Amino acid sequence: MKAVRVHAYGKRPTIDDVPEPTAAGPFDVLVEIGAAGLCRTDLHIVEGQWAEKSGVSLPYTIGHENAGWVREVGSAVSNVAVGDAVILHPLATCGLCRACRGGDDVHCDNATFPGIDSDGGMAELLLTNARAVVKLAPGQEPRAVAALADAGLTAYHAVRKAVPLLHPGATCVVIGAGGLGHIGVQCLLAMTAARIIVVDPSARARELARQFGAHEVTAPTDDLTDTAHVVLDFVGEQGAEAAGLAMTRRAGSYFVIGYGGTVTVPTIDLISTERNIIGNLVGSYLDLAELMTLAAQGSVTLHTREYPLGAVNEAMDDLETGRLAGRGILVP
Amino acid sequence: MKAVRVHAYGKRPTIDDVPEPTAAGPFDVLVEIGAAGLCRTDLHIVEGQWAEKSGVSLPYTIGHENAGWVREVGSAVSNVAVGDAVILHPLATCGLCRACRGGDDVHCDNATFPGIDSDGGMAELLLTNARAVVKLAPGQEPRAVAALADAGLTAYHAVRKAVPLLHPGATCVVIGAGGLGHIGVQCLLAMTAARIIVVDPSARARELARQFGAHEVTAPTDDLTDTAHVVLDFVGEQGAEAAGLAMTRRAGSYFVIGYGGTVTVPTIDLISTERNIIGNLVGSYLDLAELMTLAAQGSVTLHTREYPLGAVNEAMDDLETGRLAGRGILVP
Amino acid sequence: MKAVRVHAYGKRPTIDDVPEPTAAGPFDVLVEIGAAGLCRTDLHIVEGQWAEKSGVSLPYTIGHENAGWVREVGSAVSNVAVGDAVILHPLATCGLCRACRGGDDVHCDNATFPGIDSDGGMAELLLTNARAVVKLAPGQEPRAVAALADAGLTAYHAVRKAVPLLHPGATCVVIGAGGLGHIGVQCLLAMTAARIIVVDPSARARELARQFGAHEVTAPTDDLTDTAHVVLDFVGEQGAEAAGLAMTRRAGSYFVIGYGGTVTVPTIDLISTERNIIGNLVGSYLDLAELMTLAAQGSVTLHTREYPLGAVNEAMDDLETGRLAGRGILVP
Amino acid sequence: MKAVRVHAYGKRPTIDDVPEPTAAGPFDVLVEIGAAGLCRTDLHIVEGQWAEKSGVSLPYTIGHENAGWVREVGSAVSNVAVGDAVILHPLATCGLCRACRGGDDVHCDNATFPGIDSDGGMAELLLTNARAVVKLAPGQEPRAVAALADAGLTAYHAVRKAVPLLHPGATCVVIGAGGLGHIGVQCLLAMTAARIIVVDPSARARELARQFGAHEVTAPTDDLTDTAHVVLDFVGEQGAEAAGLAMTRRAGSYFVIGYGGTVTVPTIDLISTERNIIGNLVGSYLDLAELMTLAAQGSVTLHTREYPLGAVNEAMDDLETGRLAGRGILVP
Repeated sequence: MKAVRVHAYGKRPTIDDVPEPTAAGPFDVLVEIGAAGLCRTDLHIVEGQWAEKSGVSLPYTIGHENAGWVREVGSAVSNVAVGDAVILHPLATCGLCRACRGGDDVHCDNATFPGIDSDGGMAELLLTNARAVVKLAPGQEPRAVAALADAGLTAYHAVRKAVPLLHPGATCVVIGAGGLGHIGVQCLLAMTAARIIVVDPSARARELARQFGAHEVTAPTDDLTDTAHVVLDFVGEQGAEAAGLAMTRRAGSYFVIGYGGTVTVPTIDLISTERNIIGNLVGSYLDLAELMTLAAQGSVTLHTREYPLGAVNEAMDDLETGRLAGRGILVP
Repeated sequence: MKAVRVHAYGKRPTIDDVPEPTAAGPFDVLVEIGAAGLCRTDLHIVEGQWAEKSGVSLPYTIGHENAGWVREVGSAVSNVAVGDAVILHPLATCGLCRACRGGDDVHCDNATFPGIDSDGGMAELLLTNARAVVKLAPGQEPRAVAALADAGLTAYHAVRKAVPLLHPGATCVVIGAGGLGHIGVQCLLAMTAARIIVVDPSARARELARQFGAHEVTAPTDDLTDTAHVVLDFVGEQGAEAAGLAMTRRAGSYFVIGYGGTVTVPTIDLISTERNIIGNLVGSYLDLAELMTLAAQGSVTLHTREYPLGAVNEAMDDLETGRLAGRGILVP
Repeated sequence: MKAVRVHAYGKRPTIDDVPEPTAAGPFDVLVEIGAAGLCRTDLHIVEGQWAEKSGVSLPYTIGHENAGWVREVGSAVSNVAVGDAVILHPLATCGLCRACRGGDDVHCDNATFPGIDSDGGMAELLLTNARAVVKLAPGQEPRAVAALADAGLTAYHAVRKAVPLLHPGATCVVIGAGGLGHIGVQCLLAMTAARIIVVDPSARARELARQFGAHEVTAPTDDLTDTAHVVLDFVGEQGAEAAGLAMTRRAGSYFVIGYGGTVTVPTIDLISTERNIIGNLVGSYLDLAELMTLAAQGSVTLHTREYPLGAVNEAMDDLETGRLAGRGILVP
Repeated sequence: MKAVRVHAYGKRPTIDDVPEPTAAGPFDVLVEIGAAGLCRTDLHIVEGQWAEKSGVSLPYTIGHENAGWVREVGSAVSNVAVGDAVILHPLATCGLCRACRGGDDVHCDNATFPGIDSDGGMAELLLTNARAVVKLAPGQEPRAVAALADAGLTAYHAVRKAVPLLHPGATCVVIGAGGLGHIGVQCLLAMTAARIIVVDPSARARELARQFGAHEVTAPTDDLTDTAHVVLDFVGEQGAEAAGLAMTRRAGSYFVIGYGGTVTVPTIDLISTERNIIGNLVGSYLDLAELMTLAAQGSVTLHTREYPLGAVNEAMDDLETGRLAGRGILVP
């Protein structure tokens, strides 16, 4: 089969012919890829930024936002059948550690991360396990949802954690209305009656946020200091981390989702007004199932642009140079 | 009546004769002080560190950890009667703002703080309001509990917030087993089945923590990195803030209670393991009522040393020079 | 001033001239009534069904769904000012008991209930206290919201409690799409992404429910057995209570809001599938504030028909005979 | 191997020689039984009361409270190793359905229940799966904990759900201080600072409850009406269900754990004081892990009496005739 493989860091991946994997293990699920999202992390992998962290051996296949159809299942798989349309949770988890047993499977002690530390989904087929596959609703297409598998899931997860803090009329500031942020806005609208204020330096991103239903949009400003019950920071660097924390009101919570910067805060400032800083990782399996429900309802939609699998480098060029509006989707 | 009043910052307070206050307003409660706790904050007030923050006009009476008996009540007071033994919540709150209406009265928009920004309890009488007084259990003595009104309440509040995170066998690290920390250990034992590890550089404090029931005690160490579901940091400075955050495990929470230092953490470190930093202020009125229940049950006890009100400066000397083991209590 | 007063049970109220109340107490608030909702409970009061329960002395003024403008405030009132448009929480609570201190003021130990056990709002003026008044948003009119003060608040409260049980795609069955039920549907849509199924024997009510956004509507049926994560039963009698409980799935919750019938269930049936039965009373002060936010956003709307205060008996006739579609509103 | 098998309902089981099971499947775990608890349910099975419900084919091996040592594991088992001492969760669950994914595995769509609907643990060996085995702490003996696997787990689960409702000083009534109830009391003491009142008609049970730490004990009485924040009813029949509900105070919760009777309550009574009725099934896998922690800490202990496996009918006689104080444990 064809697969997008990295052979050396610093060099673009190539389209290789590789042997097809098979569902040899009892919980294996072999998926015929319908669409694989292209993510900025893929560029970072190619550049070698993840070399040490992932510890993966080259060459290997990238692609960690995957959806498709079940081609083959192991003997013990009971939750999907051959032919089912599915989206893949980014992690393949063990189901046995305390985190998995409590539904918090993102913190699985034994997970693998296809596309990062093992072969991913920019290929005709991907091998994962039964715990990673979420069945799509009738009519829901892999190519319409693939890009929600990681970026969208992260946004959904943070919003889901924030929901209990957001009573009707509470203020939620969303920093960054890019790929994750505009999913975040849609999730907030679907699950809360909070007032949503989007902060983004780009006029185009602000316009998009408004179209998606944000109640107010603004360029970065000091006017929001001490305002928000919750700040969802999808940027997490270049000053957003300080500004975001400052935007929380007494007893407010600053949710860190984007990263790159550093939070620096005197303990007295956390104490005297009882503020919280909440870390956020990708969502759980159930988070992904729920996000698919929002997508099936039409509550969450994505702008995408499709490329054939063989055009991966063209897609990467477009992403790198800013020519790609919306998420790039590779279709084998 | 006699009152301990500050006349000038940088100079010790004097014992003055001042007019007795009266319960003139409908919700006023006039309390005959049975005991007023002496706190390090009182030294800081005298030094002038709070001058700007409190904005109080000199001279005024200090003392913010108070208990006693109701002497007189306003026409609308229905929760206490003359003669009742009471402990005083440190804040006198409005009862009408959103925070008060939601039970989160520490974040009251209109609170006063007797002993900080208005006349306090190192005196024969203190005027407060009906919302600040918690009735003691039969047999519970003001002098036995006064020092719980602020320090103890802060420790209780943090523990109460941490309880849902502490399943049986979960690990809770307590940094600092001083005045607040050893109350924290007792509250944890009363409300959870967590494993409690106390970190303190002082061998005497560690010994005390063990007597109060800590399961393990240790001098500051790197061995606890990535260990705790919850860290309760009663120090919050001099390296505790970095060490405390490092002690949390994946999805763990670092509770900041002490202060003075600065938390510095790359956003990637909060994201990648989904850690939280939780600010903590003093507890609510109900927190104080519940802490009094723990004290009445004998689950929370305090080491105290009593001084007559007139010996306030001797008590301050003892506190300043480290001669005072346990909490100092002024008895009018 | 004019007031609608009951002089004898079994006889219709009369429009009397009575002395104007004044804001004599420190927390009193005198409200110029802009609109008073007419409720089936008012018919029951007139019939004498509440005589024993309320213990009120005749004659007295009815009306427990009130909104208007602040005419006069007591000396200690800080949350509203003369001229403010307000809606009135049905209870005037004490603010001092444990329930009030915890934000659960519906369970206040010392509440009065104007229009039930003391003079109500079908009059030109109503005397209540500062804890009962919620300021309206700019432009929000008393006559547009008065009927939300009791019926709407009850629906909102039940939905608010159900929200954490309703993940996206979860099933919520709403039994009864009358006055409360159609508010419930709107609240569900504003705060959840659940699938909403409305059960009502009336085709007209079902049609209305669909217009308000219910995803499915049906006449009473057995097809919903073991289906719902949450059932909100706004009927609570005539078989709804048995059918409603049967509609919950494993680990589901049956919310009782309407009343009149009896729940009868073998303990084995509660155990073996771990079902819950949740009682629901009117909402808290903050619930009312949040419901006003939903109304101001346009997320919750009401069908009303206005009558002048003097036409109260005509309005009662219309309500009794079913000629009154929507809620009746008396405007002084 | 030897196994206690039921050949015909209404007749006592016999000790048969049967082939040894093997860990053939990838997630299979074969356990050498160290102890199997004898439960009243075993008597009911033998009498035929479960014949229809379980649908099991005779003959089969009973025993659903099991602990022992791992003898053999399937190829994919990573959470236990040969030789580990383990206790067995009563259900063998699938790990793939929504309930399992959310940590609520008791509501698994595909569970089997060894000892009820498949071969159980009154035998030398039992075959279960990796998701059912909880590793014991060093030094923790199978025979000391086996009887906690079902009865104890049910009590723990109910208490765990009640903990957030039980602030220090809140009142918890425990109805029935038998096998489950006295575990419940110990769990309450370990995890709350609530006031615990035990209601039991037996003076001996009350005495035992006191020894285990109940703050008050009483024979059934009307004096507790409107008293409890939480009632844990371990009886659920013969009047306990009506009395238990009546003991809850406003906004209180009645937890049904025992069964046999019928709850009958007018909806008005649930509404007007906002009471709840909470069904309770056996606990989850994590509940069992946490209960083992309490047992290892010495917070939960059991009275047991051991019998050799071959003496099962003597043990059943003792249980039936009331000669067996504490739980009977069969040791192969």
